[in-house]
Amino acid sequence: MPQHIPSDSVGIVTPQVAKFDTPLELRSGKVLSSYEIVYETYGELNANKSNAVLICHALSGHHHAAGFHEGDKKPGWWDSCIGPGKAIDTNRFFVLCLNNLGGCHGSTGPTSINPQTNKPYGSDFPMVRVRDWVESQARLADYLGIEKFAAVIGGSLGGMQALRWSFQYPDRLSYCGVIASAPKLSAQNIAFNEVARNAIMKDPEFHDGHYMEKNAIPKTGLMTARMLAHLTYLSDDAMGEKFGRDLKTDEIKYGYKPEFQVESYLHYQGEKFSTTFDANTYLLMTKALDYFDPAQYSDNDLAKCLAPANSKFFVVSFTTDWRFSPERSEEIVDALVEADKDVTYACIESEKGHDAFLIPIPRYVKIFTAYMNRVAKELNL
Amino acid sequence: MPQHIPSDSVGIVTPQVAKFDTPLELRSGKVLSSYEIVYETYGELNANKSNAVLICHALSGHHHAAGFHEGDKKPGWWDSCIGPGKAIDTNRFFVLCLNNLGGCHGSTGPTSINPQTNKPYGSDFPMVRVRDWVESQARLADYLGIEKFAAVIGGSLGGMQALRWSFQYPDRLSYCGVIASAPKLSAQNIAFNEVARNAIMKDPEFHDGHYMEKNAIPKTGLMTARMLAHLTYLSDDAMGEKFGRDLKTDEIKYGYKPEFQVESYLHYQGEKFSTTFDANTYLLMTKALDYFDPAQYSDNDLAKCLAPANSKFFVVSFTTDWRFSPERSEEIVDALVEADKDVTYACIESEKGHDAFLIPIPRYVKIFTAYMNRVAKELNL
Repeated sequence: MPQHIPSDSVGIVTPQVAKFDTPLELRSGKVLSSYEIVYETYGELNANKSNAVLICHALSGHHHAAGFHEGDKKPGWWDSCIGPGKAIDTNRFFVLCLNNLGGCHGSTGPTSINPQTNKPYGSDFPMVRVRDWVESQARLADYLGIEKFAAVIGGSLGGMQALRWSFQYPDRLSYCGVIASAPKLSAQNIAFNEVARNAIMKDPEFHDGHYMEKNAIPKTGLMTARMLAHLTYLSDDAMGEKFGRDLKTDEIKYGYKPEFQVESYLHYQGEKFSTTFDANTYLLMTKALDYFDPAQYSDNDLAKCLAPANSKFFVVSFTTDWRFSPERSEEIVDALVEADKDVTYACIESEKGHDAFLIPIPRYVKIFTAYMNRVAKELNL
Repeated sequence: MPQHIPSDSVGIVTPQVAKFDTPLELRSGKVLSSYEIVYETYGELNANKSNAVLICHALSGHHHAAGFHEGDKKPGWWDSCIGPGKAIDTNRFFVLCLNNLGGCHGSTGPTSINPQTNKPYGSDFPMVRVRDWVESQARLADYLGIEKFAAVIGGSLGGMQALRWSFQYPDRLSYCGVIASAPKLSAQNIAFNEVARNAIMKDPEFHDGHYMEKNAIPKTGLMTARMLAHLTYLSDDAMGEKFGRDLKTDEIKYGYKPEFQVESYLHYQGEKFSTTFDANTYLLMTKALDYFDPAQYSDNDLAKCLAPANSKFFVVSFTTDWRFSPERSEEIVDALVEADKDVTYACIESEKGHDAFLIPIPRYVKIFTAYMNRVAKELNL
């Protein structure tokens, strides 16, 4: 293993691709006649295929959750929680993570070629909802021969997918992990998404979503979207601690270039994102977030919605997460208790805001590890 | 009085203009050789000129705080608190409100003609800080023959001006009202401002701030800025109560036009603002907010900074204001107590967020009125 790879890493990983030719009818009524899913796996699938854990990604996530791609210096996005001896212990579990449909990291999405036009889909790619992702994930499980997951786990938008698994395919998972998530967005959440979408769509380089054909990128809009989103992932406290009111230079320059450290940081994050992420995917992912509200089909009664679930639940929130505050997780916990489900809940003290779910905070790691030990023990893994 | 004007209104008001030819040296080192200030007054200045109250406006505010302009259906921005029998009772007080320098409602600012080029200043208009506004306000007071204000009062950025008055001209005010404000912005506050500025400045119609010469407006950037700012003025609760997840139409359309009520509302607010407010003024006002940190010149000791003050203080915060939370007001209160000043503080229960300071919430109106009665009584008005 190359020198920079730590011993508790899953090591070098290579994405794989699964092709599907059975049409997928989406919630919107549109149909994807064929599509590809890119995914990664870590650990070994056991003989009776009972040790698989599905990881669902969030808005800007992808299939590369752990380990290193050849040549990369940074590991996957949830490497802190996935690996030998880590919370999701790859010595015991076979971990599967995919890029969702509509994504821009290899699975079929707006940057893929539309077979009907031989041009990139762009904004013609159909909107995908959480339900559709869960269905496509179930098909990937079929493809891999996994009948039932030991656990389906996700954070943020990934948590919504995990939650939906619990009642969409109640017999295909034993445990459900919903981290830093919510049963539906609030008006404020939707509003933040719409400010970002508006910035992207009004960017003159957006070209109604067909910017690829024009060799253009709505970079300004994407940068604004990311700067704003990034702001909502961090807490006021975390930003205060990290940057405070520190200036980049000795004194105020009375100009409009970034002067405070926090401004430079946001510019850096926005710039980086705007050159690597697809704008149509961003729009599509935020709409999936906005639309998610499974209880609306059960008289707005979340307990009723969750009643069909057969799994046990692990719910985690973080004190300074103001995007999906602990109260939002507690709505899920309350509904699960009301629906007579087995639920373990932890609200983790952290100053890191929404981003905390990606960070190895000691109590979080400890309780996550303990819970996954319980999963392994109860399933005889 | 026209029929639609209520009896507790100051009625029809007409702005006035004061011209200044004495150069104003700004904190940045730049000099405004001459400038105009547009202002309004309500009530009558008494014989010994002891009943004047100065109102300082916030980011998007102006001189039109109360009453109606001829033909207008909506009154000034703080009409709920200024008028006969209202908290700032115009039967007793002479109320003065001006548009700050750098504004876009009549006072000299980026849309004014630069006498050196005979073109609009645009982004060549010098940056103005809170200290500069206080100095220009003091000059306006001189012009009107007001030696000492009964009170200087402001909300949000206006509260910062009031606070600065207390130690910049300690003998020119008897009372200081600081409402929904903060002693300085947090990193998160600065970050929100920078996202807005970046959206404006990267708009191709910005033309380095000289859009007027090109007959252009950075409408998209301004709209994004306003949608975002508006979001931070409202609380999650207030938005939930007002809009919830209500759709504009019967069902989801799977399109990117506004679908939720909250989206339409933000679009409306953003559109309206982007056609009426000047982008350079927006940039300048947000920088004045970012720079405000008077304690930095007193070893970061706010009590030491406020030590020279000779006025009594009235500080108000609102429970769901997350732009300037009650904790930020309490920093001011704590420093005032430490500096041995007379301070009255109220944290008002409200679900309206930062905007609450503009809304006639019963307890707010009651305590504001009671405090202003005390001011009148102690000053024998």
